Amino acid sequence: MPDPLFHRLSLLGVGLIGSSIARIARERGDIAAEVVVNARTQMTLDRTMELGIADRVEIDPARAVVGADCVVLCAPVGAFADLAVRIAPYLSPGAVLTDVGSTKQSVIRDVGSLVPAGVHFVPAHPIAGTEHSGPDAGFAELFQGRWTALTPPPGTDEAAIEKIAELWRRCGSLVERMEASHHDRVLAIVSHLPHLIAFTICGTADDLADESRQEVVNFAASGFRDFTRIAASDPVMWRDIFLNNREALLEMLQRFMEDAQAMARAVRWGDAAYIEDKVERGRKIRRSLIERKQA
Amino acid sequence: MPDPLFHRLSLLGVGLIGSSIARIARERGDIAAEVVVNARTQMTLDRTMELGIADRVEIDPARAVVGADCVVLCAPVGAFADLAVRIAPYLSPGAVLTDVGSTKQSVIRDVGSLVPAGVHFVPAHPIAGTEHSGPDAGFAELFQGRWTALTPPPGTDEAAIEKIAELWRRCGSLVERMEASHHDRVLAIVSHLPHLIAFTICGTADDLADESRQEVVNFAASGFRDFTRIAASDPVMWRDIFLNNREALLEMLQRFMEDAQAMARAVRWGDAAYIEDKVERGRKIRRSLIERKQA
Repeated sequence: MPDPLFHRLSLLGVGLIGSSIARIARERGDIAAEVVVNARTQMTLDRTMELGIADRVEIDPARAVVGADCVVLCAPVGAFADLAVRIAPYLSPGAVLTDVGSTKQSVIRDVGSLVPAGVHFVPAHPIAGTEHSGPDAGFAELFQGRWTALTPPPGTDEAAIEKIAELWRRCGSLVERMEASHHDRVLAIVSHLPHLIAFTICGTADDLADESRQEVVNFAASGFRDFTRIAASDPVMWRDIFLNNREALLEMLQRFMEDAQAMARAVRWGDAAYIEDKVERGRKIRRSLIERKQA
Repeated sequence: MPDPLFHRLSLLGVGLIGSSIARIARERGDIAAEVVVNARTQMTLDRTMELGIADRVEIDPARAVVGADCVVLCAPVGAFADLAVRIAPYLSPGAVLTDVGSTKQSVIRDVGSLVPAGVHFVPAHPIAGTEHSGPDAGFAELFQGRWTALTPPPGTDEAAIEKIAELWRRCGSLVERMEASHHDRVLAIVSHLPHLIAFTICGTADDLADESRQEVVNFAASGFRDFTRIAASDPVMWRDIFLNNREALLEMLQRFMEDAQAMARAVRWGDAAYIEDKVERGRKIRRSLIERKQA
């Protein structure tokens, strides 16, 4: 087995992503010699030890990062600024600080300026997930064949970037480097907007009169079900994502609303060709996904 | 084994729904002594015989219904008026004519007036499906535990209604009777609107500049993927559904757009409590689905 990539890996947060990394580190052995986990509640930490996916747990994030050569922020992005303030004085010189947040410009804004000299900050985003959350939700195959975006600001230490790229490759992920602003626009359309829409349509359906609500549930197999799966995700995580990718999300929502209005107009005026063309585009995109094994 | 429900069952159309009924009839033996299948192309009919799911195939719908005591319209709803004109003179007295269309007021409007005296017309809609289409897409478990809505107009023969209810129970479905207008409103929110939204967002994503499109595909695991699954459905079927449930669909789309605008406003002004509340509603609906085993 190759040497572990890190001596001590510290995970701040142990939800779906954090606990999946912990499981992979445990299974492979070539990621970290020691895994330390921090979470906000003792209950979560106790559960983490029960699951046997950490060597040590710490309720204090500062204590969790002491002596770590890699620290991964795995909490909701809204908690990053506070976490960064608390851990900054305790980060080891030469350590790599990274994260798994879904919004990258906000992370660079909130965390970047707090990173002490000599610590390397490499923002990252593994693009994989399920609607489940918490330490029990993770699994070692989560990142297999999925992409991880790295968005290091200009001037970031190349050796540190390569270490985080290798961390993700060992987690089974494909790695791509890009600008944080580009990441945020792409994620707005492929992830943040679909979630916003799914949450919204669940509310729209829930507002129907009581006698329809039962049938909404009974007849969900016809499409709605897939939206409710997306909409079952963690509320705090998604609140934070929406608020931290505001500009790109609002732009994509605006584009979508224009397109939906055009579709409404086609339905109202019976423009069959327009509707068929839009449905065909959906099929085309689906085919590309299947060809690239992302579906 | 109980006696077959029908002597000769005639399926006009053999896509996902029609071919699933044919498979069930073949497996169970207590649905029909003989299954006759009609489709628009000889290729589809040849494939149906190859699959061994029909006793006989007929390219002419009129010939397909001769002597049948149950005729099921399984084509896209836009084709129903034409089919009804062609088969009406050949329907046997006492036969039950039914359908599987996703819009029920339009079916009553297009087909109801053409049904000869002595033939019983029982509109129905099995609320189950996948994104696949064609005779190969069907499977015998499709309707298991799913609901079928029956929307017979006032005055419909009760014995005929009961026969169609029993047909669907033998297909594994739960049966519920309701007004056609009520059906169309509920389906607009649980099925037609989600499909319209999924088709639309695929187009919105496809309109992004070329350099982003590759990443849209690579990063689809983050939510978009579920939308593309819905959006992979048959274009002609969905065009017909949208155009035949126009009023209810436009009303639900209008409600949804208002709700999406309210969500956009909350994102713009940082109304965290509003966003969390909407996400929580999505989770609540998802839980009801899981409790009722529709997810």
